[in-house]
Amino acid sequence: MEREMSTGRLTLPTDVDMVQETIRLKNLLGADALRDCDGTDMPEELLSQDAKIYATYYTTRKDNAWAEANPEEIQQEYLISDRVTAKDTSLRIRLMKGFHTQQLKVNTIDDPKRWWEVIDRTTGEIVSTDHWQYDEVSGEVVIDTVPYHQYTVSFLAFLIWDPVHMYNFITNDWKDAPHQLTYDVRQPKTQAYVKEKLKRWCEENPRVDVVRFTTFFHQFTLTFDDQKREKYVEWFGYSASVSPYILEQFEKWAGYPFRPEYIVDEGYHNSIFRKPSKEFLDFVEFQQIEVSKLAKELVDIVHSYGKEAMMFLGDHWIGTEPFGKYFANIGLDAVVGSVGDGVTLRMISDIQGVKYTEGRLLPYFFPDVFTEGGDPIGESKDNWLKARRAILRSPVDRIGYGGYLKLADEWPGFIDRISHVVNEFRQIHEHMQGSQSYTAPFKVAVLNSWGSLRRWMANQVHHALWYREIYSYVGVLEALSGMPVDVEFITFEEMKQGIDPAIRVIINAGDAYTAFSGGDNWKDPDLVCALRRFVDEGGGFIGVGEPTACQYQGRFFQLSDVLGVDRELGFSLSTDKYNTLNRKHFILEDVTGEIDFGEGKSRIYAQGEHYQILDMDGQYSRLVVNEYGQGRSVYFAGLPYSPQNCRILLRAIYYAAGRAEEMKKYYVSDVETEIAVFEKTGMLAVINNTQETKKTDLYIDGALKANLTLSPMELKWINYKEEL
Amino acid sequence: MEREMSTGRLTLPTDVDMVQETIRLKNLLGADALRDCDGTDMPEELLSQDAKIYATYYTTRKDNAWAEANPEEIQQEYLISDRVTAKDTSLRIRLMKGFHTQQLKVNTIDDPKRWWEVIDRTTGEIVSTDHWQYDEVSGEVVIDTVPYHQYTVSFLAFLIWDPVHMYNFITNDWKDAPHQLTYDVRQPKTQAYVKEKLKRWCEENPRVDVVRFTTFFHQFTLTFDDQKREKYVEWFGYSASVSPYILEQFEKWAGYPFRPEYIVDEGYHNSIFRKPSKEFLDFVEFQQIEVSKLAKELVDIVHSYGKEAMMFLGDHWIGTEPFGKYFANIGLDAVVGSVGDGVTLRMISDIQGVKYTEGRLLPYFFPDVFTEGGDPIGESKDNWLKARRAILRSPVDRIGYGGYLKLADEWPGFIDRISHVVNEFRQIHEHMQGSQSYTAPFKVAVLNSWGSLRRWMANQVHHALWYREIYSYVGVLEALSGMPVDVEFITFEEMKQGIDPAIRVIINAGDAYTAFSGGDNWKDPDLVCALRRFVDEGGGFIGVGEPTACQYQGRFFQLSDVLGVDRELGFSLSTDKYNTLNRKHFILEDVTGEIDFGEGKSRIYAQGEHYQILDMDGQYSRLVVNEYGQGRSVYFAGLPYSPQNCRILLRAIYYAAGRAEEMKKYYVSDVETEIAVFEKTGMLAVINNTQETKKTDLYIDGALKANLTLSPMELKWINYKEEL
Repeated sequence: MEREMSTGRLTLPTDVDMVQETIRLKNLLGADALRDCDGTDMPEELLSQDAKIYATYYTTRKDNAWAEANPEEIQQEYLISDRVTAKDTSLRIRLMKGFHTQQLKVNTIDDPKRWWEVIDRTTGEIVSTDHWQYDEVSGEVVIDTVPYHQYTVSFLAFLIWDPVHMYNFITNDWKDAPHQLTYDVRQPKTQAYVKEKLKRWCEENPRVDVVRFTTFFHQFTLTFDDQKREKYVEWFGYSASVSPYILEQFEKWAGYPFRPEYIVDEGYHNSIFRKPSKEFLDFVEFQQIEVSKLAKELVDIVHSYGKEAMMFLGDHWIGTEPFGKYFANIGLDAVVGSVGDGVTLRMISDIQGVKYTEGRLLPYFFPDVFTEGGDPIGESKDNWLKARRAILRSPVDRIGYGGYLKLADEWPGFIDRISHVVNEFRQIHEHMQGSQSYTAPFKVAVLNSWGSLRRWMANQVHHALWYREIYSYVGVLEALSGMPVDVEFITFEEMKQGIDPAIRVIINAGDAYTAFSGGDNWKDPDLVCALRRFVDEGGGFIGVGEPTACQYQGRFFQLSDVLGVDRELGFSLSTDKYNTLNRKHFILEDVTGEIDFGEGKSRIYAQGEHYQILDMDGQYSRLVVNEYGQGRSVYFAGLPYSPQNCRILLRAIYYAAGRAEEMKKYYVSDVETEIAVFEKTGMLAVINNTQETKKTDLYIDGALKANLTLSPMELKWINYKEEL
Repeated sequence: MEREMSTGRLTLPTDVDMVQETIRLKNLLGADALRDCDGTDMPEELLSQDAKIYATYYTTRKDNAWAEANPEEIQQEYLISDRVTAKDTSLRIRLMKGFHTQQLKVNTIDDPKRWWEVIDRTTGEIVSTDHWQYDEVSGEVVIDTVPYHQYTVSFLAFLIWDPVHMYNFITNDWKDAPHQLTYDVRQPKTQAYVKEKLKRWCEENPRVDVVRFTTFFHQFTLTFDDQKREKYVEWFGYSASVSPYILEQFEKWAGYPFRPEYIVDEGYHNSIFRKPSKEFLDFVEFQQIEVSKLAKELVDIVHSYGKEAMMFLGDHWIGTEPFGKYFANIGLDAVVGSVGDGVTLRMISDIQGVKYTEGRLLPYFFPDVFTEGGDPIGESKDNWLKARRAILRSPVDRIGYGGYLKLADEWPGFIDRISHVVNEFRQIHEHMQGSQSYTAPFKVAVLNSWGSLRRWMANQVHHALWYREIYSYVGVLEALSGMPVDVEFITFEEMKQGIDPAIRVIINAGDAYTAFSGGDNWKDPDLVCALRRFVDEGGGFIGVGEPTACQYQGRFFQLSDVLGVDRELGFSLSTDKYNTLNRKHFILEDVTGEIDFGEGKSRIYAQGEHYQILDMDGQYSRLVVNEYGQGRSVYFAGLPYSPQNCRILLRAIYYAAGRAEEMKKYYVSDVETEIAVFEKTGMLAVINNTQETKKTDLYIDGALKANLTLSPMELKWINYKEEL
């Protein structure tokens, strides 16, 4: 029985030409909030509607007059020049080569000899400042060199065009809009100015209920090349959050001198895949402290006008770190972010320290999707299938859409589709009544260099985008995002210090030497001993790809004893391996077809005396279980997201935890269906994660309770305490 | 016109039951030497034939009485125990676990505290001798441990069963043959005994012309597990060439104390894929000096009886190093070895310091091939196609066969086939008349850790055996083995010191961190500068797989500037790559189909300003050329052997050398045909490397001279100075 449509928990976009349609759709879908977007405006007529009004607010741009009047307080970015090989004893490096001069301009206001660094990349040594100079006329740094050594210059540049504005400008092929400069709200003059401006704005916009900060002070790293193409994009990047003003404070706080290398990081710019240096972690910590302090002041202003403060999780989010320990201090009312899949849903819904979270679902109402050949309904379905299973574990409080409402309204069947989504979303909240869904009686921890600071952010380049290099790891997180298990994210340091005893399974997934696998952390006896002890005493360890990898003392996987596998790098080709397949195992009981390992690592061989190989690729292995003392491990060569892999991982977790017999506490047999149970309300949900009809057997406490048939994508609610 | 069969240059095996057949085949094929083999005996009746008589001679086994009477002079091997993780503060490691007690026996004659080593593999530290002891009763070493650290014991064991004898015993399922013990000819009592025995043998065998040593003193590493399966096999391995007697001499010679770790090498036993340590290279040097000295004494004995001394390149060949600087001192008359392909042919034919070389062609006349379902004729054809092109560049002086002559004689058509092989082989010698075939007017060098010491031995596990991990590298050598270029093998050290100016192209091919790619040699400024200068000044560099790879200062390929490519390890996923394909290039002019990169490395991207991508795999690249100063580079993701890849490499070499216009000095157009020119005799050979008819255009000095049609496998001779 379809419940009748209720209202609330929904934000819709609007525009000046959509007044009547907005009112109609608001009523039809039961929306309780309206918002403007980039490129759309809130019509005056809607301000009096019975709905919250959101207004996008920018703190660092859209005021070129201020920026131009205060050029020394324009935002800055640390850049690294091209790597240039000297052919002689002197070399000229043109700094802006490969960058766009409309986006970035060399900072010559602050002393280059103080803030720049020339490095001999052949030796790793710093070239002393008396061996180079900046020739401002040519824009080149002239360096005394050793022939055939390679050099880079790390230098500061002003961000004279806001990267997101530049991106939109290029993408939409705007012609006349002036380039928006950025200014640094951290600096004293701008800080005072921005606060006053916010107050003025609040006074001038009494009907706005929610100030949607987009965002605070520092843009993630987004650098364009000389052809206006993206050159470097790191959503987690701190390279554009620097200035001598900030760095001098950092030096005082940290107690050691700053080096540009801490930011440019050999040219990798502290990509999230890099095992972070101590100094970079210090800088991230320092920025969190300062950003949260200043953001709180802006939020306090908003609150003083009786408005709510909401943060968009993107653009100038750097330094806010929603899972960091300073975030709650900001005092935000809400966070809103884009939901591309289950992982990005959890990245929003798991945020603590705000009153509510809001997920902006896909598709965005833009002409690229709402066009001939586009499939907005299909995109909505895919998006919802992934988001829904995550919402059942950890719900966002609200959902919303963005873009041109007109496009959605005019697409046949689209409003019906999102009406269905909204309906299911509200049902979930009604049936859970604020309670948690049942999770396994133990916790699972993802172990990497970032831990909880980057909860649900591991192994990703850009959120929810498919990359050949990562999808086999992201699949692990995507599976976990909707799985009935409590997931923690812990660092290697925390592992050494001793972890929550509720954690019974630890996952290490990633390419060798990345922040996610851990690199030379695995040479640390304290770490390997802690993990060995954990498993030996009954814990479970799941490795994916190149877990614990760091070539050292005769092994590539440092916990090869725990995992029962190692990877052949050529050094042990002369050692015979006698690996044979035995597929019969608890982990594969529900699995009928081939297993997809994605870009799984090759050359994995099993070793030791306690392993069983569940899947092979020629002579090598792709899925191996191992017993180690009282505990167990499972190795996957890769694990892209699919309903079947989701089930394999669930089983691997219960197996590794040594709790296989408890898995059917609440269980559905078909791998493409899942179950979520709300014990407090006595309701359970069975979801069909496909667009086909599925038959699935429902187990409770290990006993078969029902044979269910689910229509495509169905979310079936059962009051199991009464009905079963 | 088929030439009439001439005689000589051919060795045939025989057996006691094959007297008349041997004589018939000897005459039919023009053989001039007869030999016994393992498992066959030379019949008395043949000793008077008009042919040289070879006799297999073993220096280190087939005399159990001696071995048993002198147990302290039995050969020894350094073993490493299982890696065992301590769960407490004490640990017992059973040394022989995983080894076969019929092959190896712990050496308790020499003081364990002096010769063994217990290592904490979690820290890499040696456990001091007062923290462990050997419990001889249980065969266990008892160690004071740190919980959850992992330990190994390196120890000496006696080789109480000769590994090759054990291998033959197991393979042929012998039942009653006594296990042959080995004795160490280097030790004083055995040395005297073996010399006397050899003299006696020479006296007792006056009709034997050639003493075929099989071989000298130390077996390559061949260790069996407790189920009598191969456990570790390294054809280049020195682990079984040790004893306290030898090691004490080594210490004196080297001037520093010996450590077992120099031999067991973290358990990798100095596999040829390991970047060799200074200490291991010292040991190899020391062994060469001592082995060559002692081998010379045995050879002198043989010569004193008017006989020739021939060495089999295999089994107990360790320490002889035919391409080492002491080999010629042995004074051997000949070397014989098995020819599996072009590379192994060159490994024999390139040996200097002997009067002649002999290649034993395949198939071996054994029942595994000469059986229903076997294809000895097909194997002979494949073997000859690969060997022939190498012989045209560097001929062995003789060929031969081994095994049971009866099997060959009775297989229909087989004698015809080898008659054809023998005929072509003799033609080559007749037409070359001891001269060299034409090679490119510059040299090509293969750059790795081993250089000329392991000429034609790079990137291989077992000779001529296909391994998934290496065939994409071995293809480079196999192509070179029959290519009209002079090939050198040089070390990184030599590269730094300055190389032969005739070398215009350098090849670095291998997996990252192996001896062949070079590992952290690439952090050495002297090396990278030498190679950069070489290319900048006009040299060519060809990289295959992971050339110059060593993650350091922002790059994985340290010569990414020269190569125009680097490999994505995850750290630069945020850096945009704009790689596009352009197949139009000199290197691909003859190529019509897809290129086979084998197990080519993935995630290769082009970078810089001077590259051109000739082949891609999705967004990544597999074949890239780059210009660097006056020079050029070519990158291949992999290059398995095929006639087409052979041609691609030839073109890449001429392109890299900057000598493209000279390539058609002598040239045939079809990629599956090749040309060899003997300028001194005025003869050229065009070979068809396939079993199909081929049309090919012949160029001389860049001008088209003839359109040839070659029958399957044809070797066509043209007196080009007169006929063209």
